[in-house]
Amino acid sequence: MTYRQTIAIDAMGGDFGPSVTVPAAAAALKRMQDTKIIFFGDEKVIAPLMGVYPELKKHSQIHHTDITISSKDKPSVALRNGRDSSMRLAIEAVKDGVADGVVSAGNTGALMAMSKMLLKCLPGINRPAIASVMPTANGKTVVLDLGANLACDAEMLIQFAILGSVYARVVQGVPAPTVGLLNVGTEEMKGHEEIRAAATILSTVPFPGKYYGFIEGNDITKGTVDVVVTDGFTGNVALKTAEGVGKLSKEFLTMAFKSSPLAMLGYLLARGAIKRMKDQVDPRKYNGGMFLGVNGICVKSHGNSDIEGTENAIVVAYDLIRNGFNKRVADEIENLSSQEKFISVVGV
Amino acid sequence: MTYRQTIAIDAMGGDFGPSVTVPAAAAALKRMQDTKIIFFGDEKVIAPLMGVYPELKKHSQIHHTDITISSKDKPSVALRNGRDSSMRLAIEAVKDGVADGVVSAGNTGALMAMSKMLLKCLPGINRPAIASVMPTANGKTVVLDLGANLACDAEMLIQFAILGSVYARVVQGVPAPTVGLLNVGTEEMKGHEEIRAAATILSTVPFPGKYYGFIEGNDITKGTVDVVVTDGFTGNVALKTAEGVGKLSKEFLTMAFKSSPLAMLGYLLARGAIKRMKDQVDPRKYNGGMFLGVNGICVKSHGNSDIEGTENAIVVAYDLIRNGFNKRVADEIENLSSQEKFISVVGV
Repeated sequence: MTYRQTIAIDAMGGDFGPSVTVPAAAAALKRMQDTKIIFFGDEKVIAPLMGVYPELKKHSQIHHTDITISSKDKPSVALRNGRDSSMRLAIEAVKDGVADGVVSAGNTGALMAMSKMLLKCLPGINRPAIASVMPTANGKTVVLDLGANLACDAEMLIQFAILGSVYARVVQGVPAPTVGLLNVGTEEMKGHEEIRAAATILSTVPFPGKYYGFIEGNDITKGTVDVVVTDGFTGNVALKTAEGVGKLSKEFLTMAFKSSPLAMLGYLLARGAIKRMKDQVDPRKYNGGMFLGVNGICVKSHGNSDIEGTENAIVVAYDLIRNGFNKRVADEIENLSSQEKFISVVGV
Repeated sequence: MTYRQTIAIDAMGGDFGPSVTVPAAAAALKRMQDTKIIFFGDEKVIAPLMGVYPELKKHSQIHHTDITISSKDKPSVALRNGRDSSMRLAIEAVKDGVADGVVSAGNTGALMAMSKMLLKCLPGINRPAIASVMPTANGKTVVLDLGANLACDAEMLIQFAILGSVYARVVQGVPAPTVGLLNVGTEEMKGHEEIRAAATILSTVPFPGKYYGFIEGNDITKGTVDVVVTDGFTGNVALKTAEGVGKLSKEFLTMAFKSSPLAMLGYLLARGAIKRMKDQVDPRKYNGGMFLGVNGICVKSHGNSDIEGTENAIVVAYDLIRNGFNKRVADEIENLSSQEKFISVVGV
């Protein structure tokens, strides 16, 4: 049988290992056409779990290894000692062209370090960014960087704007995505020097998106722009703060419904609608940190993801592969690099 | 009649001016003992609004001025041209000892610049921070800096930790407040150099709180610590992101209840409980950015605050005055400065 794409899965990554990655892959497979899965990890654990998923068994194979990267390992240690680890072998499968993308719920730092080292960056991209999609009042927005680069200069921010714009266009189907730079105010003189420099360049040079201007934290969920660009420190804090507030809102809502018999009755009547609302903002639906800018599709699933969350992370990788994301980025950058104005300002 | 405290109000500040500040002061007055109000602004607008509030009229006076700082003025322009503005005169009232604190919903940058220039910082504090209280799963947490200082060195972060701890102790009544440094992970090696340096110092030297360690964005609402310390850029983005997510959750909930007749009926039954929940996280309840570290109580109300929000900002100033916040900070710093260990590490 021939497949259009192959996804390598670090079966051992995350808090639950194969007990989540195997059923998640089985569920994802139903949403992915012509796809083959290769699991990297302990065959003795993975194989027995496949029994109940005949379709998965048919369209997957296991690459055995005993070695696993711990979530506590420093990236440098993982690089040094993780030579035959499930994570590294899964990335190498992409490097060697055996797979088109890799998904891991393992150690983020190690995954980023290994994919940078083995897969390198796309031409014209200096540093990859972690990107993720967040729900907004009117759809979705892609936010990057979420933690790969704590400090970012203007050039990196511009590259993130390119990556985010191509993602919004190619994967989310937004024809002319708007890009905002996350800042503490919308006035021109606000913010760090790097952001102001990036703003000047983005409003001058052509790039695959449309520069909107500075945005503030509340603009993320307002859906002001299709792409939110920020440094990895700010993005990481913003994403996790958003997750925290979402969780707290849910807890307060549950407490409210439990606070009186009348409220409980109200809940019983409204629960279908409430459930749909919760689904809309379910963090599992938005699982999958995409390592954009790496020369190879690499998606990080949350360490504590359940089956549904991990399934979504696998589908995120599939979407990137299926839509030829990396090829499109390379084309855009080649196109930009040939434009005099871009060269003179950005100096790619 | 004698008063225990006097609060100066920039009556013209904010999007709605006296039409909000006057009724807000009337409402706040009911919650504040022995307090006098001085309004700074256009007497022709303020005086007629007082007619319906005889108690406020009795315990307040108007200091007339025609000049107002615009929300669009740059701080430098406001400093230069705002000599007789309602904002500046209100701050000067504190400087001259005529008032104990000032509340304004005007231009944040101008208010910060003027209060720093006129009131100066508390001894031992280099730069004031904007602090605010946020709701958590188990109570409240104070977060600072929210935007006064975009970049912060370790010394500033430590001073913010001191200010936040004293606030939690003195105003919120937490005997031994825990302090967390906002970061992208909880491991020691994570984050910017300044945060790591601040962490080392806070875990070594005595200060009015108890150092907890690094925290992440989701810890803010989890209530992991009583005081969240961060630089002004990150804090500003985190606060506004949290506001945005809170707003989006409410919108989704409203949409859910409106989605079917059954859900609407459910809402009617549960609405008392839902309202209590919404009240719990009502941003108006948490209005009032405190300029901690300024040698004089100064509270910034949201520019678009309604009467209830502005009322709360005035009460925030009252609480700081009533609990002698600045005196307590000064005492703590004097106490710390006499301790050899503190001097050798922080070098105050």
